[in-house]
Formats: sequence, C-alpha cells, structure tokens
Amino acid sequence: MRNIALKIEYDGTDFVGSQWQNNGRSVQGELEGAWQQLTQEQRRIQLAGRTDAGVHARGQVANVRTETAHDLPTIQRGLTAILPEDVAVLEAWEVGPDFHARHTAIRRDYRFLIDNGPVASPLLRRHAVHVGGKLQAEAVHEAMQVLLGTHDFAAFAGAGQAGSTVRTCYMASCQVIAAWQQPLIAIDIAANAFLRHMVRNIVGTLLPVGGNRRGNDDLAAVLASRDRRRAGRTAPAHGLYLMSVSYP
Amino acid sequence: MRNIALKIEYDGTDFVGSQWQNNGRSVQGELEGAWQQLTQEQRRIQLAGRTDAGVHARGQVANVRTETAHDLPTIQRGLTAILPEDVAVLEAWEVGPDFHARHTAIRRDYRFLIDNGPVASPLLRRHAVHVGGKLQAEAVHEAMQVLLGTHDFAAFAGAGQAGSTVRTCYMASCQVIAAWQQPLIAIDIAANAFLRHMVRNIVGTLLPVGGNRRGNDDLAAVLASRDRRRAGRTAPAHGLYLMSVSYP
Repeated sequence: MRNIALKIEYDGTDFVGSQWQNNGRSVQGELEGAWQQLTQEQRRIQLAGRTDAGVHARGQVANVRTETAHDLPTIQRGLTAILPEDVAVLEAWEVGPDFHARHTAIRRDYRFLIDNGPVASPLLRRHAVHVGGKLQAEAVHEAMQVLLGTHDFAAFAGAGQAGSTVRTCYMASCQVIAAWQQPLIAIDIAANAFLRHMVRNIVGTLLPVGGNRRGNDDLAAVLASRDRRRAGRTAPAHGLYLMSVSYP
Repeated sequence: MRNIALKIEYDGTDFVGSQWQNNGRSVQGELEGAWQQLTQEQRRIQLAGRTDAGVHARGQVANVRTETAHDLPTIQRGLTAILPEDVAVLEAWEVGPDFHARHTAIRRDYRFLIDNGPVASPLLRRHAVHVGGKLQAEAVHEAMQVLLGTHDFAAFAGAGQAGSTVRTCYMASCQVIAAWQQPLIAIDIAANAFLRHMVRNIVGTLLPVGGNRRGNDDLAAVLASRDRRRAGRTAPAHGLYLMSVSYP
C-alpha cells in the first residue's frame, strides 16, 4: 500500500470549507471525487488544516493511502485536470506508511491579507479584507510579538473549542506588501497547531491596534485574560490563507 | 454645467466590456445607472479606454457633464455604495468644460499579467493568464524595446480596425513581480492610444520570445511587416489591466 501526500491550492470563495459537509462543495469532496475518477479507488483523503468557508489555501497538504500504479506526475497532473478550476494539486510525493497529513504536521503557516486602500478594491474583494482606516503595520508587528512561545490561547478560541487551548506560536509578523498600487498588509502567524478561528480572532483584536484605537500592550492583556469576550470580533474568512504545513 | 472626472476600478470577469452592449452588463451601463440613482439625472458617461469582456481596470477614467449639487466626496462615495461590488469609483474631481475622458487623453498605461508557475494558480485564474513554460523576463523586456517610438502597428491590429494604425509607444517593460510565492510576470506598455487588441496581440507575439521559441529580433520583423498574420495569437483577455490614463 502506497501513501501519497499532495500539496493543494484553492480559492475558498465557493467552498463551504475544506472538510465534507452536507450543505455544499468541500475541498475534500472534490479531491475524493477526482481521486476516484483518476484511479477508480474510493478513498478517504485527509487534509492537514481544517479551513472554514471562504478561507483560501496556497499550501494545504493532504494524504491518501492507495494501490494505484500511477506515477507521481500523472497523479499531480491528472487530479488537477479533473478538479474544478478553483482547486489544484501543486505537488505529489511518496510518504511513509505512518504519515498522516493532520496528525504528523508540526507547524502551520497562515497569512491574513488586508486591503488598506481608501476605497475597497473590486479586484481584491474576494481575496483580502478591506479596512479603510490607515493601519500602522509596525505597531501591529510589535504588538504581535507577545504571541511567540507557548501560551494558553483560550481568549482567541472559537465557540465549541474542545480540549486543551495551549498552542506554541513560532512566528508572528506584519508587513506592507505591494499589489495593484494598493496598500496591502500581510499578517503572518505560524504555530504547531491552531484553535478554531484563532487567526481570525487575533486579527480582529489587532485591527484596532493598527488603527491606534487600542494600546500596543492590549494584545498581551487579552492573551493573559484567557477570556474570549476581551478579544476583538472574528475577522472575515476571505482574507485568510493556509500558506504551508510542515512535517518532521 | 459642471464636468466631473471619475477614476474607476473594475474586475472585468463578469462584464461584456466597458461600453454599452445589448448582450449583457457593461461598466458604462452600471455607472450610468448608479449616476441616475444618485443624482436623478440621466447622463451619458464617457470612458477613456474601451476594454473588452474580461479585461480589468485599475485606473479607467470617465467624465460626466452634470448639474448635480453633490460635492466630490459624496459623488465618489455615493456611486461606489450604489455600484455592484465588481466596480468602484476611486476618485472624483472637477475638470474643465472641454475635458472628454477619451478625446483629451494623451496616454494609456496597460499591464498584462502572466502566472508563470508550473501549475495554474486557482487564486489567480481570473486575474492572470497561465503560461506553464518558464519565461525569460529579460529577453521579453529586450525584445519589447523596438516598440518604443512612433510606428505603424498594423501587424498588431485586431480585425475591423478603422483609420490610421500609427501609434506612439512611450514605455515597454517586462519584469518579474512577486505574488503568492508564485512567479508572476508583468508586461507593461504605454502609448498615446492603442489599436483594438493591440496589447494582447503584442503579448501573444512576445510569449514565444520569452520561451526561446522565437528570436529576440523577431518582434521587430513582425512590427516592420505590418502583417497581422506574422504576429502571434491574441492573448486571453483576463490577464489585461488598464492601469492609468494621462491628460495634459
């Protein structure tokens, strides 16, 4: 039995999320359908990160246990050709029998994109969240540094989070990047794993910091409180991207 | 009677083009409808550049003669609030009585975006044209320099082009820009005015240059021939952007 990993990109706009749901198209459903068409095998395809409706991915990872004889380029190209245009397989590679896209992962990198132009860009409307008030990327960057290390992130957990809320944050950064002559701000966060809505809740708390309506040390106070009511509103899904997933 | 200029951005994906047509949504139609709703005036709104179905704009310019008493910020914000989400008014300013968005314009800047990653990016599928073979941006840039100056561009004219095919090219450039860790190539061309499909026909001729299937001096030969049959295929519309329009 082979075990094959896939690196996947998708535009989350028209998906109900990465995982199977009974109310619409999921990335997992499209992948499993394409897999069956390519190999005649009915297989469960595991995804590393669970992304909500509207959330995009540049580097989602999946794995599938298979007996197909297709070589890796055929799998990558064949799946991409069968898949609808809003999802593509970027790479395929062999992994060991114990590799599980979700359980084996040791780090996820997420990016949140903010369209910070004075008028919301029609070209970016599905791929960045518009914030009209001028944000100070350096202030946001500084405020984010308290996230680094191992903390109880309960203040940023979504409703219904089960189990431990302790996670380890490896990277936290905010910078201005150029696009369409429009000021675009990228908030990057990497951790061993994320709570439900964690990135979007952190971004929702950081936005007032960037607009100077909240102190730079406020994020530390919210984090320490472990109180969801102290954090900001959940930022919209369509600014969020799963950029990459790392394995040992 | 006031004369007001508007700077407009749109996502061309769901438009039949910039100008009124009887087979679907046009940017002009949406603008004239929004203008009527805001001011109760029925007015013809002139656009500087005619863009085809699928072509985008970051800096289209329009003008409208009006007797409205609304101030400029109200016009900019009011139109944007009324317009559908794929078109927005970025700026509004007063111009002289003789200003005509199209006739007064002295320069148009266009950009063509190429997704040059090994796999077509789902996130860029409506906003860049995928070319899988690795392009050499410097070779394309060098080849483009023959376009500078005043030439008969008949070789790059679309079907049904009427009148003179002489135009003056002010800027021609090709560079790699970063986006989504995906190699993205921008081809920029500015001229006093453009023939129908001219940028897309030039890009279609340049693509083999970038992939080394055609000599760097070939563009000069095609230009000199004035023969449309010597040029490459018209590149797809969804990579093209009207970036800006200049006035004296």
